[in-house]
Amino acid sequence: MSKNKLVLGVDVGGTNTVFGLVDQIGKVFLIDSIPTQAENSAEHLFSRLFEKFKELSKDIKEEFELVGIGIGAPNANYYKGTVENPPNLNWGYVDIISLIKNYLAVPVALTNDANAAALGEMYYGAAKGIKDFIVITLGTGLGSGIVVNGNLVYGHDGFAGEIGHTIYDSNGRQCGCGRKGCLETYASAPGIKRTVMELIANTNLKSKLRSVSYESLDAKLITELALQGDKIALEAFDFTARVLGIKLADAVAHTSPEAIILFGGLANAGDLLLVPTKKYLEENVFHVFRNKVKILKSELNEGKSAVLGAAALIWHELNKMVVNK
Amino acid sequence: MSKNKLVLGVDVGGTNTVFGLVDQIGKVFLIDSIPTQAENSAEHLFSRLFEKFKELSKDIKEEFELVGIGIGAPNANYYKGTVENPPNLNWGYVDIISLIKNYLAVPVALTNDANAAALGEMYYGAAKGIKDFIVITLGTGLGSGIVVNGNLVYGHDGFAGEIGHTIYDSNGRQCGCGRKGCLETYASAPGIKRTVMELIANTNLKSKLRSVSYESLDAKLITELALQGDKIALEAFDFTARVLGIKLADAVAHTSPEAIILFGGLANAGDLLLVPTKKYLEENVFHVFRNKVKILKSELNEGKSAVLGAAALIWHELNKMVVNK
Repeated sequence: MSKNKLVLGVDVGGTNTVFGLVDQIGKVFLIDSIPTQAENSAEHLFSRLFEKFKELSKDIKEEFELVGIGIGAPNANYYKGTVENPPNLNWGYVDIISLIKNYLAVPVALTNDANAAALGEMYYGAAKGIKDFIVITLGTGLGSGIVVNGNLVYGHDGFAGEIGHTIYDSNGRQCGCGRKGCLETYASAPGIKRTVMELIANTNLKSKLRSVSYESLDAKLITELALQGDKIALEAFDFTARVLGIKLADAVAHTSPEAIILFGGLANAGDLLLVPTKKYLEENVFHVFRNKVKILKSELNEGKSAVLGAAALIWHELNKMVVNK
Repeated sequence: MSKNKLVLGVDVGGTNTVFGLVDQIGKVFLIDSIPTQAENSAEHLFSRLFEKFKELSKDIKEEFELVGIGIGAPNANYYKGTVENPPNLNWGYVDIISLIKNYLAVPVALTNDANAAALGEMYYGAAKGIKDFIVITLGTGLGSGIVVNGNLVYGHDGFAGEIGHTIYDSNGRQCGCGRKGCLETYASAPGIKRTVMELIANTNLKSKLRSVSYESLDAKLITELALQGDKIALEAFDFTARVLGIKLADAVAHTSPEAIILFGGLANAGDLLLVPTKKYLEENVFHVFRNKVKILKSELNEGKSAVLGAAALIWHELNKMVVNK
């Protein structure tokens, strides 16, 4: 009997690193996580990770063949296989692919989490059968993965797809990148919190949010209150969707996607965000693209999405190798 | 002796249609043009074109084999091979590829002029050896052709690459597309004329341009006066470059090109436009992309650029067919 071919998907986060064994159709055979320990080296993380993986997989090791490893990590460069000075990890510049080869002699591919999410949606989620789409990840920041004709856009340096750092208002909110008015200062979990604070300052709308501090506020609470009809919470979603819709109209003018898929914390608000984003996109998009672009919610299982994305990355590479043979 | 393999490149303009025989390395064997006669049908145009082509090529017809036809045309759809309701031609919706097959049984490919220009630069011009770049055509409007990993981005509907219709200022200048503040209302031949009028209105700068009407003004005159140190002309170039640089910074965040190539009438101003565009791009781009993107001038021979672009389009298709065999 031939062994089940599986890949290891790894998602490196600032706090935890999730990993799992996944087959080509997205069945997850094992999933677990370890603390990333951001203050320690990449070598330290992967040494602990492979130790734990070996232990967890020992009972099934006769039943599968590991055919590749896909990794989603911050500031990852697909072409070079490196992670380059990630802001939240004390790694500096690391050649991840060489590092991994010390542990396991299988193909390895590496990209950032938004690109991995895009491939996850293409293989296992909302973008199945779609060749031109954009995934927008709405979390601490706004990440994006742009797919053109079935392939991720990496650009000449491997860092393409930074829609979160296109400018909405050059006199607008201070961004962590040093500039002002980047889309992610509006459309992200902190972005909607900033909008709530602005609405508290600028309007007289009654709201339970007036009793909550910036620090104790989160996107989940804003969502809950919006669903209860809280006026500032509703207005905050409308404004977030407006900014997002306007900048997505620009994105559509670049690559003309069939769908834009919203992923991550803030996307869990569902129609509260999707419906007005679609409305503002249509109002602002060049007429050639009007009524053509779907706005969809991620269809990846939330707890497994990061591992599925990383697994899809390496399956995509393995499939290309077969085609090129 | 084997015959020279040549393609026919055709560029359909609002006034004239240029065509020429081109080999794979960009040598032009014949070039001519006929009036487009925008009020007549597409069939009428191509019937006249092929008649003239037959006549012009009769002396050399034993020496070459026609292997394909590439066509640049307004509102052209690459996937469907159609031209769809072009604003300046009385064509309606035409299936160009089927139409051409009535005359000649060779492969035909069709796209808009900006996409053809991008392939022209890739095969014969400033983008030789570059796999990720954007061509910006600065003429009556602002067209763009986006190349990712050596292929044009067409998007799901064939109409990708409309950077001229991304929004610079949603309260800004009225655009022909019905919206306000599109990039092309600033960065194009009419765009810089509008900027001159705005500067005449808003400043007290001395300028020869104060004696010229909007209608008698053109980009060439503004260029000449700028080279002579005319303050409004210089300021107009600086403002045009600023708006272009800011929006190109957004474009870079999408596809991370190695180079952006400026093409067409306004690009003939050379460093007057290129140098400040580069400066404003660098000032406004996300730091990850800083000092990475070249701003280049088209290197296609101006009189032949449209034919070379259309020829490159079909050579690109023919080369893909060979690879896929």
